Amino acid sequence: MRRPTIVDIAKAAGVSKGAVSCALNGRPGVSEATRARILGIAAELGWAPSSAARALSDGRAGAIGLVIDRPALILGVETFFMRFIAGIQEELGDGPTALMLQSVEDTAAELTTYKRWYAERRVDGVLMVDLRRDDPRVRALRETGLPAVVVGGPDHTQGLPCVWADDAGAMRAAVDHLAALGHRRIGHIAGPEDLVHTAERTESLRAVAREHGLEVPRVVHTDYTGEGGAEAARRLLGERPRPTALIFDNDLMAVAGLGATQELGLSVPADVSIVAWDDSPLCESVRPGLTAVRRDLPEHGRLAASLLLEAVAGAPPRHVSTSPPALVARASTAAGPAGPVSSRA
Amino acid sequence: MRRPTIVDIAKAAGVSKGAVSCALNGRPGVSEATRARILGIAAELGWAPSSAARALSDGRAGAIGLVIDRPALILGVETFFMRFIAGIQEELGDGPTALMLQSVEDTAAELTTYKRWYAERRVDGVLMVDLRRDDPRVRALRETGLPAVVVGGPDHTQGLPCVWADDAGAMRAAVDHLAALGHRRIGHIAGPEDLVHTAERTESLRAVAREHGLEVPRVVHTDYTGEGGAEAARRLLGERPRPTALIFDNDLMAVAGLGATQELGLSVPADVSIVAWDDSPLCESVRPGLTAVRRDLPEHGRLAASLLLEAVAGAPPRHVSTSPPALVARASTAAGPAGPVSSRA
Repeated sequence: MRRPTIVDIAKAAGVSKGAVSCALNGRPGVSEATRARILGIAAELGWAPSSAARALSDGRAGAIGLVIDRPALILGVETFFMRFIAGIQEELGDGPTALMLQSVEDTAAELTTYKRWYAERRVDGVLMVDLRRDDPRVRALRETGLPAVVVGGPDHTQGLPCVWADDAGAMRAAVDHLAALGHRRIGHIAGPEDLVHTAERTESLRAVAREHGLEVPRVVHTDYTGEGGAEAARRLLGERPRPTALIFDNDLMAVAGLGATQELGLSVPADVSIVAWDDSPLCESVRPGLTAVRRDLPEHGRLAASLLLEAVAGAPPRHVSTSPPALVARASTAAGPAGPVSSRA
Repeated sequence: MRRPTIVDIAKAAGVSKGAVSCALNGRPGVSEATRARILGIAAELGWAPSSAARALSDGRAGAIGLVIDRPALILGVETFFMRFIAGIQEELGDGPTALMLQSVEDTAAELTTYKRWYAERRVDGVLMVDLRRDDPRVRALRETGLPAVVVGGPDHTQGLPCVWADDAGAMRAAVDHLAALGHRRIGHIAGPEDLVHTAERTESLRAVAREHGLEVPRVVHTDYTGEGGAEAARRLLGERPRPTALIFDNDLMAVAGLGATQELGLSVPADVSIVAWDDSPLCESVRPGLTAVRRDLPEHGRLAASLLLEAVAGAPPRHVSTSPPALVARASTAAGPAGPVSSRA
């Protein structure tokens, strides 16, 4: 399987290189019969135009880019990214567009990567994750001509197309569930404070707790690591009175928080209920199984890639919301110390 | 940040497009002073040659490829791939080579992807994972001129460069640990049977068990999913006499197997000891914490990418082994029913 060249096609067809070139490029200079024969032989030999040659002729790089700004250790554990990427791959299928992936250390490096990819025509567009308030990346991407789709939003994307999940509604489902079980003191072990979706979850938590007449929830921000989640859990459970329910912003922190809670001699769910975010096989695998907010993460990837291909083709920006998140109840949540609301009626 | 062109540079420098082209391409036709000024302005504007133009001139695609043949669900949970990819990214840094990623459904689709990437000059080489015995991908890659590095080996790569871990030695460390604790009946919940590294682990398990005079270990092959791991654990623990120690081939199966063991009313480690493979934050986060085989997975990625860049540059193939795996002992392993070997002396 040596890479076939125009010379190979010319040899196999018994014609000149020039004739092959005319046939492949749809230029006059060969008869229709010869053109058909040459195209047939090219296909048989597995010939394809080089992506570089094609990029120069149609201006397309044939790739979209994803830059991830997370430490390597977290990348390897959080299930979000690989499921998101799996969705992107599903949308791209075996079509002409590939995924270019880069992990970086900070926002400056992310911006540099966008700029370099753009200058080198290495990608036709990018997917941007981890949206922040007043995000400098949104401004930078809008100022370029590089098509971009933001995962998150839709209020902070300054008009860029975006794919977003109803984080506020998902938090409402989690708090409704805990309130119905009689919990009145909820702790939220949240992601980094500057992420838009973290703020949306926290604001929703406070609003829904007020509606239910619960105590003001305690919120601790973390770096999404298991260690950070366990430490935040120990801190909240050390307060008096302690929360009777904890909501964790990713699955790894929830699993680590479950371990930390048990190490404090507290039983889950008898003493403390636990809700995880982004249900995953992990949430099913630990004991007790973790009640979790479930989103269709591959759907996020599929929709984001699809919107980006639209944007590359010049379509006007769209804001698309994903399927509504759902709460999956498992054994880690049960009646709070005062019992469920119904039993107190 | 519009993409700067040669026209922009010409305007800013007050010279012709032709002069800019001479300066950027190192051709005569402009004075050294003008060349220096033009290059300075080009750098200031953030100009870079398009990757397509560069690929046509030096024949390099500026990307290496990785095809992963796993269901989306597993990709999202197994920590191996993202940590491996993080290592690749570390080696590539912000250099001229990017990573192209594709997930596929089967080996045929993987071979098709290699062929297409090669024909389109989309990548300069590929990293191949999940090495099998008599792997058709090794033959196909050797027959092409596409540089490739295999992760795994070194006895099954037919001369292709490879990066491999000492799976046999790691299994020896795990079995020595369990034998010293007095375990005599070990079950192995293994990955897919046709993977070379699965076979190496299983063969090593049998050999070391013989050396220690243990019973013949029971081996069950799975698909690496948590569900598969839990089911295999239930099956082995349902046998009489049941194994007193289980070795799982990935972290997710070990966590699920821990849950399944506890659901059977068995205590870990009092009734059953558990060893996980590829230590991860998960193994630390569950209770009891899981004793695990630890490898430096980012190192795998770094070495594999480094060898591939060598191969692309035309260096002769090398076989490189990674740092020796180590066993990290945690609370999930303890003395077997007969007590540790030393206490029976």
